[in-house]
Amino acid sequence: MEKPYVLGLDMGGTNSVLGIVDVRGHVIARTSIKTQQYPDINDYINALYEEAVKIVEPIGGFSLFRGIGAGVPNGNYYTGRIEGAMNLPWPSVPFAELMTERFGIPCKITNDANAAAQGEMTYGAAKGMKDFIMITLGTGVGSGIVIDGKVVYGHDGFAGELGHTTAVRGPEGRQCNCGKKGCLEAYASATGVARTAKEIISSTTKETILRNLDIDNITSKDVFDAAEQGDEVAKQIFDYTGTILGQQIADFIAFSAPEAIIMFGGLTKSGHWILDPVVKAINDNVLPLWRNKVKVLFSDLKEADAAVLGASSLAWEE
Amino acid sequence: MEKPYVLGLDMGGTNSVLGIVDVRGHVIARTSIKTQQYPDINDYINALYEEAVKIVEPIGGFSLFRGIGAGVPNGNYYTGRIEGAMNLPWPSVPFAELMTERFGIPCKITNDANAAAQGEMTYGAAKGMKDFIMITLGTGVGSGIVIDGKVVYGHDGFAGELGHTTAVRGPEGRQCNCGKKGCLEAYASATGVARTAKEIISSTTKETILRNLDIDNITSKDVFDAAEQGDEVAKQIFDYTGTILGQQIADFIAFSAPEAIIMFGGLTKSGHWILDPVVKAINDNVLPLWRNKVKVLFSDLKEADAAVLGASSLAWEE
Repeated sequence: MEKPYVLGLDMGGTNSVLGIVDVRGHVIARTSIKTQQYPDINDYINALYEEAVKIVEPIGGFSLFRGIGAGVPNGNYYTGRIEGAMNLPWPSVPFAELMTERFGIPCKITNDANAAAQGEMTYGAAKGMKDFIMITLGTGVGSGIVIDGKVVYGHDGFAGELGHTTAVRGPEGRQCNCGKKGCLEAYASATGVARTAKEIISSTTKETILRNLDIDNITSKDVFDAAEQGDEVAKQIFDYTGTILGQQIADFIAFSAPEAIIMFGGLTKSGHWILDPVVKAINDNVLPLWRNKVKVLFSDLKEADAAVLGASSLAWEE
Repeated sequence: MEKPYVLGLDMGGTNSVLGIVDVRGHVIARTSIKTQQYPDINDYINALYEEAVKIVEPIGGFSLFRGIGAGVPNGNYYTGRIEGAMNLPWPSVPFAELMTERFGIPCKITNDANAAAQGEMTYGAAKGMKDFIMITLGTGVGSGIVIDGKVVYGHDGFAGELGHTTAVRGPEGRQCNCGKKGCLEAYASATGVARTAKEIISSTTKETILRNLDIDNITSKDVFDAAEQGDEVAKQIFDYTGTILGQQIADFIAFSAPEAIIMFGGLTKSGHWILDPVVKAINDNVLPLWRNKVKVLFSDLKEADAAVLGASSLAWEE
């Protein structure tokens, strides 16, 4: 192959990781910069380019690269623009165009969850699957939907906002960052779990080791550690979170009848504590024909690599 | 063109309508039989064949036909089987295979809502659209989802069961025929509207002309007539129904970011009385980026033709 490499960029609100990926799907070199350090988008791209040169030159230069694929917050596949990404210094910019100009090779972008879904399909737990839904459980709740072997972008490029489907209707629904109430993201994200922990701990008199922690900064890791020690309140926190997540997933299954649901991100480190209530709630809420039929899996890609690999796979497209 | 015709079959629980469709999408002849009159599937297919001969022979015989496309309750596109259709005399049969044998031309099947979506895309309100969701509001609530120009079948062929997403959570959710509670179908179907009418009329002391009717048999037509005369309770029934429907549609939009939602079936005859609360609830429940962006349309195909045309379009496929 004439051009055996691509670059994959995983842009997060904190770090931007750039990796060189070969045709076998190995990340053979990587580098990173701090996303927030560049108030001007041109400075960000220049810094990224300078870092890229350091890893690209040793293997033969940009002429061996087919392109760049980037997973970026609020990245739009169709327009190549970042649009309304409030966690970035430049919420709305023509990112793909600027990258293509500076790097001299074509850049395609998508949002981070779609990139992760691409990565799963090409290299991960969804290898060989044509229909699956990826749910990313991190600071927010994102999703990448694959139907008939292709990531769903929708009419405007913004398909797959499953974190903003309504999990709890009515006034008791939690306020979400998006302005709506009761969104799945307000329950199944890291901050959602922290909030559930706080609510459950405050409303019970049960003994729990979680009470020894700073109640405003409880993480899913803390809850996991407690559950592992047999803490009933910790289990209750996972049950509550998993039930809400599974109920929503049941509706997603009614939509696209996927072969599998693949979960990715921090919350999955809680293993069966979160998986069991998710699976139960799915089976309690799907039509009989899907009961115990849809696989529920955790991503098996290393978290750091999944997004880089997924983003990079965009660059192999025609 | 060597074979300029196809047959389209719209099988309902009551009537089975068979039409001859030409390449321009005109239904040039049609016939029908009573679905329930044949306890044996072979007798049903023989009767259908005999009827077909009467309209096919005059235009030159089956050799001019490319195939048959059929929209049938619980029809599975992949397997060609009807599976678990409780409203048919033969809930589970290898329908496409039996039809192909008897008619001597290939038969493909799908479910009725998917057939309607195909019809809309090829001949109706969704002409030229690549991403839309069709919601059929009839005895039940069905859906056909089109993404990137193709009907979504999912991993098992059963995608698009949006009538069985959960509209009302918890014990107060209405019992649905599927065994679950709170399904959209229990609110937005004909029986759902009847039930809402009964509940609202019983729980109010307001004057309403609907009180003069048999409370167990109120139809959406009755409610429409009342609303047209300024009846406040009738309006309340549409508001309740439309709000629940619109809330669910908002979540569907977050899934596939469609260009349009197309509604089809009896309830759409209520016009703006149902449309207005649907649109309001969508806008109240989608992310800001979709507010007032997604078209909400009624099907403009004649109800009788939509399913025949949609089903027939399967027969043009390779």
